[in-house]
Amino acid sequence: MVGIKDVAKHAGVAVGTVSRVINNNTTVNPEIRERVLKSIKELNYVPNEVARSFKLRTTKMVALLLPSIWNPFFSELAYYIEDELDKSGYKLLLCNSGGRPEKEQYYLDMLKQNKVAGVLGITYNPYETEIEPEIPFVSIDRRFSENVICVTSDNFKGGSMAAKELIKKGCKKIAFIGDYTKIKSEVSNRKVGFIEEAEKEGVEYVIFEELDPIKDNEAFVRKFIEMYPDVDGVFAITDMLAATYIKIAKENNISVPEDVKVIGYDGIQNTDLFHPILSTIRQPVKEMAMKSVELLIKRINNKKIDILTVSIDVEFRQGETT
Amino acid sequence: MVGIKDVAKHAGVAVGTVSRVINNNTTVNPEIRERVLKSIKELNYVPNEVARSFKLRTTKMVALLLPSIWNPFFSELAYYIEDELDKSGYKLLLCNSGGRPEKEQYYLDMLKQNKVAGVLGITYNPYETEIEPEIPFVSIDRRFSENVICVTSDNFKGGSMAAKELIKKGCKKIAFIGDYTKIKSEVSNRKVGFIEEAEKEGVEYVIFEELDPIKDNEAFVRKFIEMYPDVDGVFAITDMLAATYIKIAKENNISVPEDVKVIGYDGIQNTDLFHPILSTIRQPVKEMAMKSVELLIKRINNKKIDILTVSIDVEFRQGETT
Repeated sequence: MVGIKDVAKHAGVAVGTVSRVINNNTTVNPEIRERVLKSIKELNYVPNEVARSFKLRTTKMVALLLPSIWNPFFSELAYYIEDELDKSGYKLLLCNSGGRPEKEQYYLDMLKQNKVAGVLGITYNPYETEIEPEIPFVSIDRRFSENVICVTSDNFKGGSMAAKELIKKGCKKIAFIGDYTKIKSEVSNRKVGFIEEAEKEGVEYVIFEELDPIKDNEAFVRKFIEMYPDVDGVFAITDMLAATYIKIAKENNISVPEDVKVIGYDGIQNTDLFHPILSTIRQPVKEMAMKSVELLIKRINNKKIDILTVSIDVEFRQGETT
Repeated sequence: MVGIKDVAKHAGVAVGTVSRVINNNTTVNPEIRERVLKSIKELNYVPNEVARSFKLRTTKMVALLLPSIWNPFFSELAYYIEDELDKSGYKLLLCNSGGRPEKEQYYLDMLKQNKVAGVLGITYNPYETEIEPEIPFVSIDRRFSENVICVTSDNFKGGSMAAKELIKKGCKKIAFIGDYTKIKSEVSNRKVGFIEEAEKEGVEYVIFEELDPIKDNEAFVRKFIEMYPDVDGVFAITDMLAATYIKIAKENNISVPEDVKVIGYDGIQNTDLFHPILSTIRQPVKEMAMKSVELLIKRINNKKIDILTVSIDVEFRQGETT
């Protein structure tokens, strides 16, 4: 088998020079570069090193798009995704795209140009037409088209469980509070499941929403409390919003859980710093990360994927707020 | 001036083919590839696109090494670093290296091979000899040698301020609790500042440490409380450890701040989910991120850097635990 030394000998250069040409190092004299390329071709030299080198440079990276890595839910997700990618030899490019669609576009362009092997993540920006089917792209929580892979938690069931729990604990008028997006996101099913359960049980309910992103969470919650003082059960679209509700409720002399019971969504409380412990619908973050990476790598390698939309089960976690 | 169209015409190929050669796309027939490279050379075609393309592929990425992105302090730091890098056109490769030195080594190898333009981050692994001076590497919190750039918060002052605050609040026997590393980290100055202040004021103090990483924070704190039941002021090396102390103290019927006053370090509490609000030494995370990126980019561009070790001021933030 032809080795790098044979190429060097054939081209009349040092082994290091061949290596630099392979690695596309621009310090090599163009003439020598051509000579080496010619030798590579003539000797039909395509050893593992070259294949690996090309692969490494062009395809062993995956971009992760997130609104903000600072958010505890997203940082947990990023942690597991990086861990999973690493097991398959992929490196992670991180993009905080919060409110800046042009940043996401850059990584999608990189994907088209083969500079990253795949893209995955949570995007709220208006790209309805940008994601072509069959490209290595995995959307978390958001539905593009039937051909784009989507991994999500079972948001409908989560919303339904939240309503069920509040009703079980004796709530007579329950509310869903949160933001909604113009794009088609699986997250909106938290509300749908909540409504269906409330209607099934014949319990009065309120939907209080604002277009994503909510500009001022505290003002949003204040307005809600003012408009619906008789609500005795709150399901917030995220744990963060639930925490804001609890803070503002306290300022208004509303006791949680005595006066109002509160359930969040995400289950991000993993440290002793988070108090009170929220009753919440726990997203299976690790499983979502594993599934997303598994499907992305399958798509990168052109393997057949039978089910493009994966919904992973959630669980209710009892805390101190219900 | 020679354009890509001239190259295409000269080589007798389509413009797209020239572009693919420039972008090192492997789908181009080797013969055609050579012809295009020859035309590029003959016409002396080195336009902006090529320069940009080469740059993009080989030098516009920076790797960030962190023990774990899941940790709130690290995710805040990563948020600002990505934001700063983006302003200069650099993309961020994220690596959670917690306890796995071989992962860090991979990115340092990429740096040597010019696959990333620079590396920055927080490393606790034993690389004393691996970081060569003059390479684009910025260490946060850890001191390698005098030639390696190091950005840190003023840990000595932070430790000193913590002791001062506890003493001011009437504590008679104060303790520092935390982990220590075998490597030379700036973080250890939190303890040094604490000790110097306690000695200056003639106040009794205790140092309770375990080698990093502490295997079980709760067991560590339990042992501390058992061994030193008469301590009335605690300075914990991080907010997370302070939170663990507060939790275990509560289990032992110790009231914070009535019986024991507690100060943390980091200042990570940015959401309504974090309670109680810790009294803490706030690290200037955004400033640390900005300074790290600024120095890294200077080093990448071979610009002169006068001061290689930058220590950024900290502040005491009054919370509910002192």
